[in-house]
Amino acid sequence: MTAATGAAGGPLQFARNERRRFYEELSEFLRIPSVSAKSEHDPDTARAARWLRDHMAAAGLEAEVLPTAGHPVALGEWRGAGPDAPTLLVYGHYDVQPPEPLDLWDSPPFEPSVRDGRLYARGAADDKGQLFMHVKALESHLAARGSLPVNVVVLAEGEEEIGSPNLLPFVKQHRERLEAGTVVISDSAMFAPGQPSLLYSLRGLAYFELHASGPATDLHSGAYGGAVRNPANALAALLAGLQEADGRIAVPGFYDDVEEPDPEALARVRALPFDEEAFAQEVGVATLAGGEKGRSPLERLWARPSCDINGMASGYAGEGAKTVLPARAMAKVSFRLVPNQTPERVRTLVERHVRNNAPEGVEVRVAALHGARPWRAKLEGEVFEAAARALEASFGRRPVLAGEGGTIPIVVELEELLQADTLLMGFALPGANMHAPNEWLATDCFERGLDALVRLYDEL
Amino acid sequence: MTAATGAAGGPLQFARNERRRFYEELSEFLRIPSVSAKSEHDPDTARAARWLRDHMAAAGLEAEVLPTAGHPVALGEWRGAGPDAPTLLVYGHYDVQPPEPLDLWDSPPFEPSVRDGRLYARGAADDKGQLFMHVKALESHLAARGSLPVNVVVLAEGEEEIGSPNLLPFVKQHRERLEAGTVVISDSAMFAPGQPSLLYSLRGLAYFELHASGPATDLHSGAYGGAVRNPANALAALLAGLQEADGRIAVPGFYDDVEEPDPEALARVRALPFDEEAFAQEVGVATLAGGEKGRSPLERLWARPSCDINGMASGYAGEGAKTVLPARAMAKVSFRLVPNQTPERVRTLVERHVRNNAPEGVEVRVAALHGARPWRAKLEGEVFEAAARALEASFGRRPVLAGEGGTIPIVVELEELLQADTLLMGFALPGANMHAPNEWLATDCFERGLDALVRLYDEL
Repeated sequence: MTAATGAAGGPLQFARNERRRFYEELSEFLRIPSVSAKSEHDPDTARAARWLRDHMAAAGLEAEVLPTAGHPVALGEWRGAGPDAPTLLVYGHYDVQPPEPLDLWDSPPFEPSVRDGRLYARGAADDKGQLFMHVKALESHLAARGSLPVNVVVLAEGEEEIGSPNLLPFVKQHRERLEAGTVVISDSAMFAPGQPSLLYSLRGLAYFELHASGPATDLHSGAYGGAVRNPANALAALLAGLQEADGRIAVPGFYDDVEEPDPEALARVRALPFDEEAFAQEVGVATLAGGEKGRSPLERLWARPSCDINGMASGYAGEGAKTVLPARAMAKVSFRLVPNQTPERVRTLVERHVRNNAPEGVEVRVAALHGARPWRAKLEGEVFEAAARALEASFGRRPVLAGEGGTIPIVVELEELLQADTLLMGFALPGANMHAPNEWLATDCFERGLDALVRLYDEL
Repeated sequence: MTAATGAAGGPLQFARNERRRFYEELSEFLRIPSVSAKSEHDPDTARAARWLRDHMAAAGLEAEVLPTAGHPVALGEWRGAGPDAPTLLVYGHYDVQPPEPLDLWDSPPFEPSVRDGRLYARGAADDKGQLFMHVKALESHLAARGSLPVNVVVLAEGEEEIGSPNLLPFVKQHRERLEAGTVVISDSAMFAPGQPSLLYSLRGLAYFELHASGPATDLHSGAYGGAVRNPANALAALLAGLQEADGRIAVPGFYDDVEEPDPEALARVRALPFDEEAFAQEVGVATLAGGEKGRSPLERLWARPSCDINGMASGYAGEGAKTVLPARAMAKVSFRLVPNQTPERVRTLVERHVRNNAPEGVEVRVAALHGARPWRAKLEGEVFEAAARALEASFGRRPVLAGEGGTIPIVVELEELLQADTLLMGFALPGANMHAPNEWLATDCFERGLDALVRLYDEL
């Protein structure tokens, strides 16, 4: 921390003084149900983009909403450091996951509510809250000093939760304007409460829908059961056939591209203070029994691929007993990928596996919904060191290097396209229910994280 | 056919003259959404019972609605043949299956619509339409002649589609009043268009819900996938484990009580003019690939048990890709049973099998929703012969003996309790979408079937 940053009238002090207003503004942002996956929410995603533009403009950035073939991009820029100064690109997203199942939320997903040191709302952690922190760090500098030591571009997309189908074309189209030495992203979690982290890896993703269809309409299961192949039975068998009993993925060729984690990284992972029992208790299970046998939970989460059914629907699932042989069955299935897997290769293998195992009498179709490559960080450089110092100053602890089981689809592509390094510093906490009911962001992380982001610019 | 039946002013003529009114009244009956499985429809089932009571009273029966612990019974009686005459008990049900999925109906399920010789509505075939035919046959006799040659009791329950949980207690309570030598039921289909049938067998049923639950809430499939056991993955494996690839049911002990059909019955089944290709085409599948290898479709449908998933629900099944690890997964699974299986024994075996195969890290629960024993007819006696003659006179063809893959739970119990034989003569047609969207009853079957029911009383 430089002396000026925390001084009265400095950006850190500004951020702390304006905290109440910041929370109010964030709540306004979170109230917009910008669910990118559902077309009925298109007006809301558009509204969220405009809100963010106006908000960045008020913070002192040049801001505009730019169209894509899908949901728009909200772009903010500050170029006052001059053409010779480095440029930092802050990437985030203003779209959110669908909030369903609604009945499991303790307070409505789009009515932010603070309880026990947590701000509850869909998007509080993923990613509106964290994106908002970046804007507020910039505002604090610009309000307190009128300048930043580097040029900054804020690139906020509205399609992260549906696989960023239009971001890459956008970045290609605006490549010069988006040029930057470093991409900074806050869309992930800290390793543990009070323990700041920098991410060194992300898993990739290959997401599919499997459809099995049989008779033209639902049939009476008594009158037809045993003669007509049941698409739900067939789908269950296909789904079960994706994985062995020991957790290994049973798709032939699936592990061909999987790189074993290097011993140094593995040693680092094993040195982390991970309490398996506490983790299990937190998510509400008796034991961490997912994934492959013979690997630690963190290794399975960070360095090994996984296979999860994300949803299933078939026939009658309401109250009581309906004796129906369903005409069709559907499941959403996704694989998390590790270096050097690619979603394209996995798609080929899964399609072949399903085709080879599809039984007579039903039609089976695999639809690829989206994919993203896995990523590994370069763990060195000026910005990396500056971020480590800023985090240590704000949280009182040196950040650890952590993996992340999730995916930020755009990281690999942005790195390649912009020839930039990526810094991933997240402020959510484990168990934040990103993608689940009762998503939350700890107010302590919001406040210390904002401190750290303010400090980052002085450490550069 | 006796001369008087079809004579001008006779009951047959009456039924034919009043046809238009009969259709209008039936439509009124079908408009009541008496879905027994859904408590929101309780007022409708009650209304259907009252409608039927009033209607039987108008037909000349003593009629009343009698309570049970669930939906009520509508009872109609005519005792004018005197205490020494035989009594026929007509059993039927006024409740219907849930109409979902609604979007697959070409006309609304509770707005009867006649198109191309078919009356479309939920309950048209199963069983309101067929039950109504019996009431109209009685009305025709009583209107034309003022009497019937036998005493008649009409017992219409409102819980057949949920397993008749309260009918047996009702029958026990009113046993003397329900005493009858023969039970007549029309709740099934003819073997083919124009080909009347008498049923010689029904399959039994054992219906379950399987629940798998894991984490306390839905989780992010990236942040937790591979560490936390996915309940949907676990459920898919359990479901797949119920059946072998060759269609045999994989639950240990399941076939212990399964009796091979006797050679004579099998020969009769094989002699039936069954067009496998036409049957497949009618239901919209390429091939009849369900059930066990090495058995003909009719044998699989009538004489072998089956296993069908009736519904599945888990996680996110809406538009787009939601990367969620669901907290829970549910499936409805039912087995059709053949002599000498019992639902109680199957329940024990399924529970044990699921328990033995449930993986670590999820909780699995089996709930038995309902069960019914399989049935075989006594193929002889006065009423049986009378029915055969009435069918032949009305359809111009001798009835065949057919099996039925479905279940009428109460048949076995009524037979035992009342010490009566059962006669199953149905007037639906194959493909009538009982339990599916676009349920229908052929108007030709309604009219000839009603003829046959009118004639039945004169043949007795």
